[in-house]
Amino acid sequence: VPPIIVAVDALGGDQAPRAIVSGAIQAVRREDIGVTLVGPADEVRAELDRHGSVRQLPITIADASDVVGMDEPPLAALRRKPRASVKIAAELVSRHEAHAVFSAGHTGATFMAAHAAFGVLAGVERPGLAVTIPTRTGTAVLIDAGANLECRAEHLVQFGIMGAAYARVALRRASPNVGLLSIGEEAGKGNDLIREAHAGLVRAPVTFVGNLEARDLFSGRADVVVCDGFTGNVALKVGEGLAETIEQLLREELSASAVARLGALLARQAFQRLRRRVDDAEYGGAPLLGVGAVTIVAHGRSSARAVENGIVMAARLVRERVVERLGAALMAR
Amino acid sequence: VPPIIVAVDALGGDQAPRAIVSGAIQAVRREDIGVTLVGPADEVRAELDRHGSVRQLPITIADASDVVGMDEPPLAALRRKPRASVKIAAELVSRHEAHAVFSAGHTGATFMAAHAAFGVLAGVERPGLAVTIPTRTGTAVLIDAGANLECRAEHLVQFGIMGAAYARVALRRASPNVGLLSIGEEAGKGNDLIREAHAGLVRAPVTFVGNLEARDLFSGRADVVVCDGFTGNVALKVGEGLAETIEQLLREELSASAVARLGALLARQAFQRLRRRVDDAEYGGAPLLGVGAVTIVAHGRSSARAVENGIVMAARLVRERVVERLGAALMAR
Repeated sequence: VPPIIVAVDALGGDQAPRAIVSGAIQAVRREDIGVTLVGPADEVRAELDRHGSVRQLPITIADASDVVGMDEPPLAALRRKPRASVKIAAELVSRHEAHAVFSAGHTGATFMAAHAAFGVLAGVERPGLAVTIPTRTGTAVLIDAGANLECRAEHLVQFGIMGAAYARVALRRASPNVGLLSIGEEAGKGNDLIREAHAGLVRAPVTFVGNLEARDLFSGRADVVVCDGFTGNVALKVGEGLAETIEQLLREELSASAVARLGALLARQAFQRLRRRVDDAEYGGAPLLGVGAVTIVAHGRSSARAVENGIVMAARLVRERVVERLGAALMAR
Repeated sequence: VPPIIVAVDALGGDQAPRAIVSGAIQAVRREDIGVTLVGPADEVRAELDRHGSVRQLPITIADASDVVGMDEPPLAALRRKPRASVKIAAELVSRHEAHAVFSAGHTGATFMAAHAAFGVLAGVERPGLAVTIPTRTGTAVLIDAGANLECRAEHLVQFGIMGAAYARVALRRASPNVGLLSIGEEAGKGNDLIREAHAGLVRAPVTFVGNLEARDLFSGRADVVVCDGFTGNVALKVGEGLAETIEQLLREELSASAVARLGALLARQAFQRLRRRVDDAEYGGAPLLGVGAVTIVAHGRSSARAVENGIVMAARLVRERVVERLGAALMAR
């Protein structure tokens, strides 16, 4: 069988193209996959050459001269820039020259480029961004992490079905528990959107465990946490911000007391290990579920190692036929 | 001057009436205030008598035989139970027999009882729950913490004005910075509600610093964080849940490594101190801003010490004329 090829947006992200090219090289050295780097051919070639003898590696270049900036309105930018790297990358997939897209660039632009190039699965109105989060007992999937800021109840139900199908592959749970993020566990708790989505999820072909309070987000009670993109983004970023604040306050506390200082070094090492454990779960990127091909959105500040992991993740999701599984799950309604 | 009298719902909360009565005794011993305990007279009297010679303290009892359960729909429950403790407590204020209400019972019921008894200030469509949260640099006020699950932009603007007036008293900031919780700092980021509220806050008589990302919630960039009650509740509970999870994971990390174990005891002591620093900010309860009299809503699991702090807080807000200040701030639009 020919290897899986991932189309990689070489211009997306704060450290592009350097971190992207390095990550791509590491990915093809690590696994039997191919990468097409999409960006200005000369610039990408020069980056590749910095790494020495990489001409034998399964890496090709697709020329793309433009990029969607992080502060541009994505729809207008994509219309104005037909040679934008993320657009060319998505079109490689629609022309069957690649199997998946990876981008650490503008999330909205990736979303729109993917949508335009290979559409959405039958039964999907809104693709959702699925982020893996750490829990006390392992990991869980939160969907939507910010792709859709205005949602109707039907969208949340579709997120639940897609999230469960994805969790079977990504978390290897045979029958993942699906929870609906709300302000209380009782079915009646929440706003109109939540009450209507609750009723829809009860009838959906998933293992629905009901409403989930935000304090249970990290408890492991649900394998799939369903929410609208605004709430999901706030929840994830509160988590990030608090982890940083606790780390800093803990550092201050540890240096404040002469007695505690004795344990400071060891405790900080422990906290660093903990941070890595938490960060590892997010590593690589988040799949956009519901579009017609595997599409991985990565953090703008992705390092070469994060890019490597994201590309490997994209190939794995192609190999495990996650798009076909999502399609089947949606048909089962 | 006669002392300020706080009407205390003796039946509200997981540990009622015991923790409520103990907290009230501690409060009147600590400050020159009076308390009216609202609950079944016999039961409250028996609790008071457990504490020995308290007959000289400025504590009276107002008989109320019923309570709104935590899982009851509050509007229906208040209609069915004219002798509900929180209702009687609010009515003491409207009859000028008390200056403020404190309840650790059903938040929605307290909200509705207060609204029915003494209404809302001119210019207020929705009262908002203001919670004090810890930040890197001190504390901030988040409004609304969960009283209004469906909000329009105008409600968020009113929360900003009330939150700023409250922060001047509670945080002692002359010109508090007001931020709008969203998914990005740029004015255009967010959903329709946020964009419209942003425009309204720009025109409002507050020091508006623009949108605030959720990761900046604890950074101290804003003294007043404005959001709808659904988002506010999720943000606060994600914070609580993550703090608990980090504490537990840290404990596991510290006991996992033989080397780290050496510092475990000291580090845990530091973390406990940190937790107290974080918890202290929330201690006592949250004022419901926009109703016609000081109304403090406390956590259902409030201890006697939390009740004591909440009652003292209620008296302080009466003394500092916070309701009048809110009214003036709303008139200044």
